[in-house]
Amino acid sequence: MTDLKPYFEAHVFCCTNRRPDGHKRGSCAAHGSEKLRDYMKARARELGFDGKVRINSAGCLDRCELGPTLVIYPEGVWYTYHSTGDVDEILQTHLVEGRRVERLMLTLEQRELRPEQRG
Amino acid sequence: MTDLKPYFEAHVFCCTNRRPDGHKRGSCAAHGSEKLRDYMKARARELGFDGKVRINSAGCLDRCELGPTLVIYPEGVWYTYHSTGDVDEILQTHLVEGRRVERLMLTLEQRELRPEQRG
Repeated sequence: MTDLKPYFEAHVFCCTNRRPDGHKRGSCAAHGSEKLRDYMKARARELGFDGKVRINSAGCLDRCELGPTLVIYPEGVWYTYHSTGDVDEILQTHLVEGRRVERLMLTLEQRELRPEQRG
Repeated sequence: MTDLKPYFEAHVFCCTNRRPDGHKRGSCAAHGSEKLRDYMKARARELGFDGKVRINSAGCLDRCELGPTLVIYPEGVWYTYHSTGDVDEILQTHLVEGRRVERLMLTLEQRELRPEQRG
């Protein structure tokens, strides 16, 4: 995929876009992404990733129906997450242990949440 | 780097973080990143990337001294850019032609702009 050593080993982008209430696509912020992003940042600091992992806010990632969404680069793994428990699982399993949280992963063609993904 | 087909072939994150005027690290927004991000989004639409390329805003990417900065994933190529001409060059050379704009690229250890990068 690339010849470059990554500046961050894992660069996490949490969508915090907000649309007006009642918008047909919804939005990640309307589903609580800002508080979950704050929690993720705080927990990441506590885990002491030391510049290897960065948690960022992002504008609309355009997968609003699946939100809140985040994407972890350079791997390109997309997740939906609805609770601090989901955030903890992504931090521990993906970012600490280097595995994946299959339950929360979004597939390429996915257009709606699977039953086990609903918060 | 990854076993996954990317959802976006190129996912561009433009830092639009703003710090108060006079902050010692500066900030990308203080260097005009919001207008340049708007320009990049508009030009990308005109180029008709059709969902293959996405231009996003992002919070602080933590390379403030080199800003405005953007990063293109999954490749993980970082750029500084100071003008609509720089944006045009990144769009055309990197995103249309699949090459790199060496002049504007940030290296892993880079801590200040090279002379040819200053806007």
